[in-house]
Amino acid sequence: MSDSLSEKTLDSKLIYDGRVVHLYLDTVQLPNGNSAKREIVRHPGAVAVVPLDADGNVILVSQYRHAAGRILLEIPAGTLNPGEDPDVCAVRELQEEIGQKPGKLQKLGRIYLATGYRTEYIHLYLATKLVESRLHMDEDEFIEVSRLSIDEVIRRIQTGEIADAKTISAIMMVRSLPA
Amino acid sequence: MSDSLSEKTLDSKLIYDGRVVHLYLDTVQLPNGNSAKREIVRHPGAVAVVPLDADGNVILVSQYRHAAGRILLEIPAGTLNPGEDPDVCAVRELQEEIGQKPGKLQKLGRIYLATGYRTEYIHLYLATKLVESRLHMDEDEFIEVSRLSIDEVIRRIQTGEIADAKTISAIMMVRSLPA
Repeated sequence: MSDSLSEKTLDSKLIYDGRVVHLYLDTVQLPNGNSAKREIVRHPGAVAVVPLDADGNVILVSQYRHAAGRILLEIPAGTLNPGEDPDVCAVRELQEEIGQKPGKLQKLGRIYLATGYRTEYIHLYLATKLVESRLHMDEDEFIEVSRLSIDEVIRRIQTGEIADAKTISAIMMVRSLPA
Repeated sequence: MSDSLSEKTLDSKLIYDGRVVHLYLDTVQLPNGNSAKREIVRHPGAVAVVPLDADGNVILVSQYRHAAGRILLEIPAGTLNPGEDPDVCAVRELQEEIGQKPGKLQKLGRIYLATGYRTEYIHLYLATKLVESRLHMDEDEFIEVSRLSIDEVIRRIQTGEIADAKTISAIMMVRSLPA
Protein backbone atom coordinates (compact mmCIF):
# COMPACT_ATOMS: atom_id res chain seq x y z
CA MET A 1 0.00 0.00 0.00
CA SER A 2 1.40 3.31 -1.08
CA ASP A 3 2.39 6.06 1.34
CA SER A 4 1.05 8.58 -1.19
CA LEU A 5 -2.33 8.08 0.53
CA SER A 6 -1.18 9.52 3.87
CA GLU A 7 -2.45 12.68 5.57
CA LYS A 8 -0.50 15.03 7.84
CA THR A 9 -2.14 16.55 10.94
CA LEU A 10 -1.84 20.36 10.90
CA ASP A 11 -4.06 21.17 13.89
CA SER A 12 -6.24 19.44 16.51
CA LYS A 13 -8.92 21.30 18.49
CA LEU A 14 -10.86 19.80 21.43
CA ILE A 15 -14.60 20.31 20.88
CA TYR A 16 -16.12 18.28 23.73
CA ASP A 17 -14.52 16.37 26.58
CA GLY A 18 -17.17 13.93 27.82
CA ARG A 19 -17.24 10.83 29.96
CA VAL A 20 -17.10 8.40 27.01
CA VAL A 21 -16.76 10.66 23.97
CA HIS A 22 -13.84 13.04 23.46
CA LEU A 23 -14.54 14.95 20.26
CA TYR A 24 -11.83 16.78 18.30
CA LEU A 25 -11.86 18.77 15.08
CA ASP A 26 -8.56 18.14 13.28
CA THR A 27 -7.18 19.90 10.23
CA VAL A 28 -5.15 17.65 7.92
CA GLN A 29 -3.08 18.10 4.80
CA LEU A 30 -4.27 15.80 1.98
CA PRO A 31 -1.94 13.99 -0.45
CA ASN A 32 -2.75 16.63 -3.12
CA GLY A 33 -1.73 19.50 -0.81
CA ASN A 34 -5.30 20.63 -0.03
CA SER A 35 -6.37 20.81 3.59
CA ALA A 36 -9.49 19.21 5.06
CA LYS A 37 -11.32 19.00 8.40
CA ARG A 38 -11.70 15.68 10.23
CA GLU A 39 -14.10 15.15 13.14
CA ILE A 40 -12.44 12.63 15.43
CA VAL A 41 -13.81 10.76 18.44
CA ARG A 42 -10.94 9.80 20.74
CA HIS A 43 -11.64 6.98 23.16
CA PRO A 44 -9.36 5.07 25.59
CA GLY A 45 -10.00 1.77 23.77
CA ALA A 46 -11.95 -1.27 24.86
CA VAL A 47 -12.00 -5.04 25.19
CA ALA A 48 -14.59 -7.62 24.17
CA VAL A 49 -14.46 -11.28 25.20
CA VAL A 50 -16.02 -14.52 23.90
CA PRO A 51 -16.51 -16.59 27.10
CA LEU A 52 -16.81 -20.28 26.18
CA ASP A 53 -18.11 -22.61 28.93
CA ALA A 54 -17.15 -26.28 29.46
CA ASP A 55 -20.08 -27.37 27.23
CA GLY A 56 -18.87 -25.16 24.36
CA ASN A 57 -21.60 -22.54 24.85
CA VAL A 58 -20.95 -18.82 24.44
CA ILE A 59 -22.03 -16.68 27.41
CA LEU A 60 -23.70 -13.49 26.16
CA VAL A 61 -25.18 -10.43 27.83
CA SER A 62 -28.40 -8.58 27.00
CA GLN A 63 -28.58 -4.91 27.85
CA TYR A 64 -30.60 -1.91 26.82
CA ARG A 65 -28.52 0.31 24.55
CA HIS A 66 -29.86 3.85 24.61
CA ALA A 67 -27.96 4.77 21.41
CA ALA A 68 -29.62 1.93 19.48
CA GLY A 69 -32.93 2.33 21.33
CA ARG A 70 -33.26 -1.41 21.88
CA ILE A 71 -31.99 -4.36 23.90
CA LEU A 72 -28.93 -5.91 22.25
CA LEU A 73 -27.36 -9.32 22.68
CA GLU A 74 -23.56 -8.97 22.79
CA ILE A 75 -20.43 -10.60 24.14
CA PRO A 76 -19.15 -9.05 27.40
CA ALA A 77 -17.14 -5.87 26.75
CA GLY A 78 -15.91 -2.76 28.46
CA THR A 79 -13.85 0.40 28.19
CA LEU A 80 -10.22 0.43 29.34
CA ASN A 81 -9.47 2.43 32.47
CA PRO A 82 -6.66 4.96 31.84
CA GLY A 83 -3.40 3.02 31.49
CA GLU A 84 -5.11 -0.33 32.11
CA ASP A 85 -3.65 -3.49 30.52
CA PRO A 86 -6.31 -4.92 28.13
CA ASP A 87 -5.77 -8.44 29.61
CA VAL A 88 -6.60 -7.11 33.09
CA CYS A 89 -9.63 -5.26 31.76
CA ALA A 90 -10.89 -8.44 30.02
CA VAL A 91 -10.75 -10.43 33.28
CA ARG A 92 -12.43 -7.61 35.24
CA GLU A 93 -15.28 -7.20 32.72
CA LEU A 94 -16.00 -10.95 32.73
CA GLN A 95 -16.21 -10.98 36.52
CA GLU A 96 -18.45 -7.89 36.58
CA GLU A 97 -20.79 -8.84 33.74
CA ILE A 98 -21.10 -12.64 33.91
CA GLY A 99 -19.49 -13.52 37.27
CA GLN A 100 -16.82 -15.78 35.74
CA LYS A 101 -13.02 -15.66 35.88
CA PRO A 102 -11.14 -17.23 32.95
CA GLY A 103 -8.49 -19.89 33.59
CA LYS A 104 -7.27 -19.25 30.05
CA LEU A 105 -7.39 -15.98 28.09
CA GLN A 106 -6.39 -16.03 24.40
CA LYS A 107 -5.98 -12.96 22.17
CA LEU A 108 -8.11 -13.16 18.99
CA GLY A 109 -7.01 -9.87 17.44
CA ARG A 110 -7.75 -6.16 17.42
CA ILE A 111 -10.41 -4.39 15.38
CA TYR A 112 -11.40 -0.84 14.48
CA LEU A 113 -15.09 -0.05 14.87
CA ALA A 114 -15.58 3.16 12.92
CA THR A 115 -12.66 3.84 10.64
CA GLY A 116 -14.06 7.22 9.57
CA TYR A 117 -13.87 9.00 12.90
CA ARG A 118 -12.92 6.76 15.83
CA THR A 119 -9.33 6.35 16.97
CA GLU A 120 -9.26 3.26 19.10
CA TYR A 121 -8.90 -0.49 18.82
CA ILE A 122 -11.12 -3.05 20.46
CA HIS A 123 -9.02 -5.93 21.78
CA LEU A 124 -10.81 -9.26 21.21
CA TYR A 125 -10.30 -12.34 23.41
CA LEU A 126 -11.41 -15.92 23.84
CA ALA A 127 -11.90 -16.92 27.51
CA THR A 128 -12.06 -20.58 28.54
CA LYS A 129 -11.66 -22.72 31.71
CA LEU A 130 -14.16 -20.41 33.44
CA VAL A 131 -14.49 -20.42 37.24
CA GLU A 132 -17.34 -18.69 39.10
CA SER A 133 -16.03 -15.49 40.70
CA ARG A 134 -18.22 -12.41 40.86
CA LEU A 135 -17.00 -8.84 41.07
CA HIS A 136 -19.46 -6.16 42.19
CA MET A 137 -21.35 -4.65 39.24
CA ASP A 138 -22.12 -0.95 39.04
CA GLU A 139 -25.59 -0.56 40.63
CA ASP A 140 -26.69 1.40 37.56
CA GLU A 141 -25.80 -1.43 35.13
CA PHE A 142 -28.65 -3.77 34.12
CA ILE A 143 -27.61 -6.93 32.36
CA GLU A 144 -29.14 -10.35 31.67
CA VAL A 145 -26.88 -13.33 30.99
CA SER A 146 -27.61 -16.18 28.55
CA ARG A 147 -25.77 -19.20 27.13
CA LEU A 148 -25.99 -20.19 23.45
CA SER A 149 -24.18 -22.74 21.31
CA ILE A 150 -21.87 -21.28 18.63
CA ASP A 151 -24.25 -22.63 15.94
CA GLU A 152 -27.14 -20.79 17.61
CA VAL A 153 -25.05 -17.58 17.79
CA ILE A 154 -24.35 -17.88 14.05
CA ARG A 155 -28.02 -18.51 13.33
CA ARG A 156 -28.94 -15.36 15.26
CA ILE A 157 -26.32 -13.37 13.33
CA GLN A 158 -27.96 -14.59 10.10
CA THR A 159 -31.44 -13.62 11.29
CA GLY A 160 -30.21 -10.22 12.50
CA GLU A 161 -31.06 -10.88 16.14
CA ILE A 162 -27.35 -10.48 16.93
CA ALA A 163 -26.29 -7.29 15.13
CA ASP A 164 -23.31 -6.02 17.08
CA ALA A 165 -20.14 -5.74 14.95
CA LYS A 166 -17.65 -6.62 17.72
CA THR A 167 -19.65 -9.76 18.60
CA ILE A 168 -19.87 -10.87 14.95
CA SER A 169 -16.15 -10.16 14.36
CA ALA A 170 -15.07 -12.05 17.50
CA ILE A 171 -17.25 -15.09 16.70
CA MET A 172 -15.77 -15.16 13.18
CA MET A 173 -12.26 -15.17 14.67
CA VAL A 174 -13.13 -17.98 17.10
CA ARG A 175 -14.45 -20.06 14.18
CA SER A 176 -11.24 -19.41 12.19
CA LEU A 177 -8.96 -20.61 14.99
CA PRO A 178 -6.95 -23.75 14.23
CA ALA A 179 -8.65 -26.65 16.05
CA MET B 1 -35.24 -10.62 26.80
CA SER B 2 -36.97 -8.68 29.54
CA ASP B 3 -38.32 -5.18 29.10
CA SER B 4 -37.19 -4.46 32.68
CA LEU B 5 -33.83 -3.50 31.12
CA SER B 6 -35.25 -0.54 29.16
CA GLU B 7 -34.39 3.13 29.65
CA LYS B 8 -36.65 6.13 29.06
CA THR B 9 -35.30 9.33 27.47
CA LEU B 10 -36.02 12.38 29.67
CA ASP B 11 -33.99 14.99 27.76
CA SER B 12 -31.73 15.33 24.70
CA LYS B 13 -29.32 18.26 24.23
CA LEU B 14 -27.34 18.95 21.04
CA ILE B 15 -23.65 19.46 21.90
CA TYR B 16 -22.03 19.60 18.47
CA ASP B 17 -23.51 19.52 14.98
CA GLY B 18 -20.65 18.55 12.67
CA ARG B 19 -20.32 17.26 9.14
CA VAL B 20 -20.10 13.60 10.16
CA VAL B 21 -20.57 13.65 13.92
CA HIS B 22 -23.72 14.96 15.61
CA LEU B 23 -23.13 14.75 19.35
CA TYR B 24 -25.95 14.81 21.90
CA LEU B 25 -26.02 14.58 25.68
CA ASP B 26 -29.16 12.67 26.67
CA THR B 27 -30.63 12.20 30.13
CA VAL B 28 -32.32 8.83 30.66
CA GLN B 29 -34.32 7.16 33.41
CA LEU B 30 -32.79 3.81 34.42
CA PRO B 31 -34.82 0.68 35.27
CA ASN B 32 -34.23 1.38 39.00
CA GLY B 33 -35.62 4.93 38.74
CA ASN B 34 -32.23 6.68 38.88
CA SER B 35 -31.30 9.03 36.05
CA ALA B 36 -28.08 8.91 34.06
CA LYS B 37 -26.34 10.85 31.27
CA ARG B 38 -25.67 9.25 27.87
CA GLU B 39 -23.34 10.76 25.27
CA ILE B 40 -24.80 9.85 21.89
CA VAL B 41 -23.33 10.22 18.40
CA ARG B 42 -26.17 10.46 15.87
CA HIS B 43 -25.24 9.64 12.28
CA PRO B 44 -27.36 9.23 9.12
CA GLY B 45 -26.34 5.58 8.74
CA ALA B 46 -24.10 3.94 6.18
CA VAL B 47 -23.67 1.08 3.75
CA ALA B 48 -20.78 -1.33 3.19
CA VAL B 49 -20.56 -3.71 0.23
CA VAL B 50 -18.62 -6.91 -0.52
CA PRO B 51 -18.00 -6.71 -4.30
CA LEU B 52 -17.28 -10.18 -5.67
CA ASP B 53 -15.85 -10.36 -9.21
CA ALA B 54 -16.42 -13.14 -11.78
CA ASP B 55 -13.32 -15.00 -10.49
CA GLY B 56 -14.66 -14.99 -6.90
CA ASN B 57 -12.24 -12.28 -5.72
CA VAL B 58 -13.27 -9.57 -3.26
CA ILE B 59 -12.53 -6.01 -4.41
CA LEU B 60 -11.17 -3.97 -1.50
CA VAL B 61 -10.08 -0.37 -1.07
CA SER B 62 -7.06 1.00 0.80
CA GLN B 63 -7.28 4.49 2.20
CA TYR B 64 -5.58 6.54 4.85
CA ARG B 65 -7.79 6.81 7.91
CA HIS B 66 -6.85 9.86 9.93
CA ALA B 67 -8.73 8.57 13.02
CA ALA B 68 -6.71 5.34 13.02
CA GLY B 69 -3.52 7.09 11.86
CA ARG B 70 -2.82 4.39 9.26
CA ILE B 71 -3.82 3.05 5.86
CA LEU B 72 -6.64 0.51 6.24
CA LEU B 73 -7.85 -2.20 3.86
CA GLU B 74 -11.68 -2.24 3.84
CA ILE B 75 -14.67 -3.14 1.70
CA PRO B 76 -16.21 -0.13 -0.12
CA ALA B 77 -18.51 1.86 2.17
CA GLY B 78 -20.11 5.24 2.54
CA THR B 79 -22.50 7.42 4.47
CA LEU B 80 -26.15 7.71 3.43
CA ASN B 81 -27.21 11.06 1.99
CA PRO B 82 -30.26 12.46 3.86
CA GLY B 83 -33.28 10.32 2.92
CA GLU B 84 -31.24 8.15 0.53
CA ASP B 85 -32.31 4.52 -0.01
CA PRO B 86 -29.43 2.27 1.21
CA ASP B 87 -29.63 0.20 -2.04
CA VAL B 88 -29.07 3.36 -4.10
CA CYS B 89 -26.21 4.43 -1.83
CA ALA B 90 -24.55 1.00 -2.20
CA VAL B 91 -24.59 1.23 -6.01
CA ARG B 92 -23.28 4.83 -5.94
CA GLU B 93 -20.42 4.03 -3.55
CA LEU B 94 -19.31 1.06 -5.68
CA GLN B 95 -19.21 3.23 -8.79
CA GLU B 96 -17.32 6.01 -7.00
CA GLU B 97 -14.81 3.86 -5.14
CA ILE B 98 -14.09 0.90 -7.44
CA GLY B 99 -15.72 1.96 -10.74
CA GLN B 100 -18.09 -1.03 -10.92
CA LYS B 101 -21.87 -1.26 -11.09
CA PRO B 102 -23.47 -4.41 -9.65
CA GLY B 103 -25.83 -6.49 -11.79
CA LYS B 104 -27.00 -8.15 -8.56
CA LEU B 105 -27.17 -6.62 -5.08
CA GLN B 106 -28.03 -8.88 -2.14
CA LYS B 107 -28.70 -7.73 1.46
CA LEU B 108 -26.46 -9.48 4.01
CA GLY B 109 -27.84 -7.83 7.14
CA ARG B 110 -27.51 -4.75 9.31
CA ILE B 111 -24.99 -4.18 12.09
CA TYR B 112 -24.35 -1.73 14.90
CA LEU B 113 -20.78 -0.47 15.16
CA ALA B 114 -20.57 1.05 18.60
CA THR B 115 -23.46 -0.02 20.76
CA GLY B 116 -22.41 2.27 23.63
CA TYR B 117 -22.91 5.61 21.91
CA ARG B 118 -23.72 5.36 18.21
CA THR B 119 -27.26 5.31 16.91
CA GLU B 120 -27.07 4.02 13.39
CA TYR B 121 -27.02 0.79 11.46
CA ILE B 122 -24.59 -0.11 8.72
CA HIS B 123 -26.42 -1.92 5.91
CA LEU B 124 -24.26 -4.75 4.53
CA TYR B 125 -24.52 -6.04 0.93
CA LEU B 126 -23.03 -8.58 -1.42
CA ALA B 127 -22.56 -7.23 -4.99
CA THR B 128 -22.05 -9.58 -7.95
CA LYS B 129 -22.32 -9.52 -11.78
CA LEU B 130 -20.15 -6.40 -11.79
CA VAL B 131 -19.94 -4.19 -14.87
CA GLU B 132 -17.37 -1.43 -15.30
CA SER B 133 -19.06 1.96 -14.81
CA ARG B 134 -17.19 4.77 -13.09
CA LEU B 135 -18.79 7.68 -11.25
CA HIS B 136 -16.66 10.74 -10.56
CA MET B 137 -14.85 10.46 -7.22
CA ASP B 138 -14.48 13.45 -4.90
CA GLU B 139 -11.12 15.05 -5.84
CA ASP B 140 -10.14 14.98 -2.16
CA GLU B 141 -10.66 11.20 -1.85
CA PHE B 142 -7.55 9.02 -2.27
CA ILE B 143 -8.20 5.33 -2.67
CA GLU B 144 -6.28 2.32 -4.00
CA VAL B 145 -8.20 -0.73 -5.24
CA SER B 146 -7.07 -4.36 -4.86
CA ARG B 147 -8.53 -7.83 -5.48
CA LEU B 148 -8.09 -10.71 -3.04
CA SER B 149 -9.56 -14.21 -2.85
CA ILE B 150 -11.91 -14.81 0.11
CA ASP B 151 -9.32 -17.19 1.61
CA GLU B 152 -6.69 -14.44 1.41
CA VAL B 153 -9.11 -11.95 3.03
CA ILE B 154 -9.66 -14.42 5.90
CA ARG B 155 -5.90 -14.96 6.24
CA ARG B 156 -5.40 -11.19 6.52
CA ILE B 157 -8.16 -10.97 9.15
CA GLN B 158 -6.30 -13.64 11.13
CA THR B 159 -2.96 -11.78 10.85
CA GLY B 160 -4.59 -8.47 11.77
CA GLU B 161 -3.80 -6.83 8.42
CA ILE B 162 -7.55 -6.44 7.90
CA ALA B 163 -8.88 -5.00 11.16
CA ASP B 164 -12.06 -3.17 10.19
CA ALA B 165 -15.16 -4.50 11.98
CA LYS B 166 -17.64 -3.90 9.13
CA THR B 167 -15.34 -5.72 6.67
CA ILE B 168 -14.89 -8.70 9.04
CA SER B 169 -18.64 -8.86 9.80
CA ALA B 170 -19.61 -8.70 6.11
CA ILE B 171 -17.10 -11.40 5.10
CA MET B 172 -18.43 -13.63 7.89
CA MET B 173 -21.95 -13.16 6.53
CA VAL B 174 -20.87 -13.95 2.96
CA ARG B 175 -19.26 -17.18 4.19
CA SER B 176 -22.44 -18.13 6.08
CA LEU B 177 -24.67 -17.75 2.99
CA PRO B 178 -26.32 -20.93 1.75
CA ALA B 179 -24.38 -22.09 -1.35
